[in-house]
Amino acid sequence: MTASNPAAPRPVIAIDWGTSSLRGARLGASGQVLASRAFPRGILTVPPGQFEAVFHELFGDWMQAEGALCLISGMAGSRQGWQEAPYCPCPAGFAELGQHLLWLQADRIALVPGLSCTGQGDRQAPDVMRGEEVQIFGALQLSGRDSATLVLPGTHSKWAHVDSGRVLQFQTFMTGEVYALMSQHSILGKTLDLSGDFDAATFLQGVDQSQQAGSVLHRLFAVRTLGLFDRLSAAQLPSYLSGLLIGEELRTQALGANSAPVILIGSDTLTQRYSLALQHLGLACQSHGAEATWAGLHALASTC
Amino acid sequence: MTASNPAAPRPVIAIDWGTSSLRGARLGASGQVLASRAFPRGILTVPPGQFEAVFHELFGDWMQAEGALCLISGMAGSRQGWQEAPYCPCPAGFAELGQHLLWLQADRIALVPGLSCTGQGDRQAPDVMRGEEVQIFGALQLSGRDSATLVLPGTHSKWAHVDSGRVLQFQTFMTGEVYALMSQHSILGKTLDLSGDFDAATFLQGVDQSQQAGSVLHRLFAVRTLGLFDRLSAAQLPSYLSGLLIGEELRTQALGANSAPVILIGSDTLTQRYSLALQHLGLACQSHGAEATWAGLHALASTC
Repeated sequence: MTASNPAAPRPVIAIDWGTSSLRGARLGASGQVLASRAFPRGILTVPPGQFEAVFHELFGDWMQAEGALCLISGMAGSRQGWQEAPYCPCPAGFAELGQHLLWLQADRIALVPGLSCTGQGDRQAPDVMRGEEVQIFGALQLSGRDSATLVLPGTHSKWAHVDSGRVLQFQTFMTGEVYALMSQHSILGKTLDLSGDFDAATFLQGVDQSQQAGSVLHRLFAVRTLGLFDRLSAAQLPSYLSGLLIGEELRTQALGANSAPVILIGSDTLTQRYSLALQHLGLACQSHGAEATWAGLHALASTC
Repeated sequence: MTASNPAAPRPVIAIDWGTSSLRGARLGASGQVLASRAFPRGILTVPPGQFEAVFHELFGDWMQAEGALCLISGMAGSRQGWQEAPYCPCPAGFAELGQHLLWLQADRIALVPGLSCTGQGDRQAPDVMRGEEVQIFGALQLSGRDSATLVLPGTHSKWAHVDSGRVLQFQTFMTGEVYALMSQHSILGKTLDLSGDFDAATFLQGVDQSQQAGSVLHRLFAVRTLGLFDRLSAAQLPSYLSGLLIGEELRTQALGANSAPVILIGSDTLTQRYSLALQHLGLACQSHGAEATWAGLHALASTC
């Protein structure tokens, strides 16, 4: 593979193909984004057998560059995607991930596998991620660290523990999905007004409440009673609910005030809430956005 | 009130008017059910201002008995019901509940108020119940006890602590609603088959898992991964999910193996699951069904 010669770096096409969206970037020799594209063409919109055609329709021009190397992360590697790329088991670092690439076209296009882990003790059920592993390695590189606790908030939040460049273990929390179901489909939805602005003080009230003994299944009901007794307004209740759920995630993490900063990866809206909650509990953190994906795919390409 | 003379007991009409159903019973002098009726006429089906008309249409004949006394418990006393009966604050026993009856027709028809409590420590949000208070007092009477921990499983499970005949405190858990949302509207619904039979062993596996450290927001995701890795079949997953959620309720209760039996009140399907989980954890329990409502209303009528 002559292209791995640093003197003549290959053009790298980085693709993040998720459930509901498809993003791509053409990266320069040092990983800088030369051009980027985004399409509402998540894997759910692509009929079986059409992934290759959709890919070439949207990124074929970029692939014409001599020696172009394309790495695709995310749900494109799932059973419902282009082709199933078996999970790479933890502990796993860059080297293991590179060894588990699933080549769709030799030395040209590969699917990045997700990670799986089988926890210990209370975590005997397996856990999985697809796409987040690339963001994790990218964020570590951007922050110049090889050990950290990382959080990727979202519909299914991921908490990952990395030591010496290897993901040792991670856990998924259904926080975002539970928030959506509770606010839109449960009895709580009748009392809260989702059009209100985010209220930081009320959010932190929820975070505080969630640090106490007891169960989130009980605490959720307070969203109803605090409304019923006019202790919080309908517009404040979504912030309180958000605080209860994000706080529940934090409650179960063994984070000390002397820990290295937690690395948050995600949209500004979500990372700001986690950042607020972490700082409120005396914990430091730093945030990364979409650039973590490109940094991770670029670094992975350099191992090919 | 001559009717309280035991020599000439008044005919008692007991009504349980909930959100989605309406049940009534005509009770004999010792509380036995002489006749009962049930209608799909929960308060959600009754237009404002029509409660009295619906009541007389369905129970008017029973009310013609000389001296008939009717007590109505449940959501009929809520803001969306016949008339709002303000909550009776805890601690509250029979005497307080009787003092808080809201008479719709003097000495003839009354709404039983619900209970409210303001917890301490981690339970600063208020909590409320409507209808369950009658079942609690009824079950205590049926079991000849005046102190107990009682559980009323359902969409919103209630755990109540009663000492010397008075409800000191209670907590609501959104267990049933979270089960319904998770199995029908979340990503978990894609992998589980709700038509399967209840599987006790898998249910207890979920109960065991829920007793460990960690968060239910994470454990829920195992329902997906255990299916994904073929560790549990689609038909087993609903039982596992049920065990995780009911187990989460139990985890937060300070119940010792030497405690007096927990009293369960509800449908057979639900009380059997709680009974299985409690016994698995070495805790004794006893169950009551609909008869607890009639016993509670009969006992309350005797104080009028």
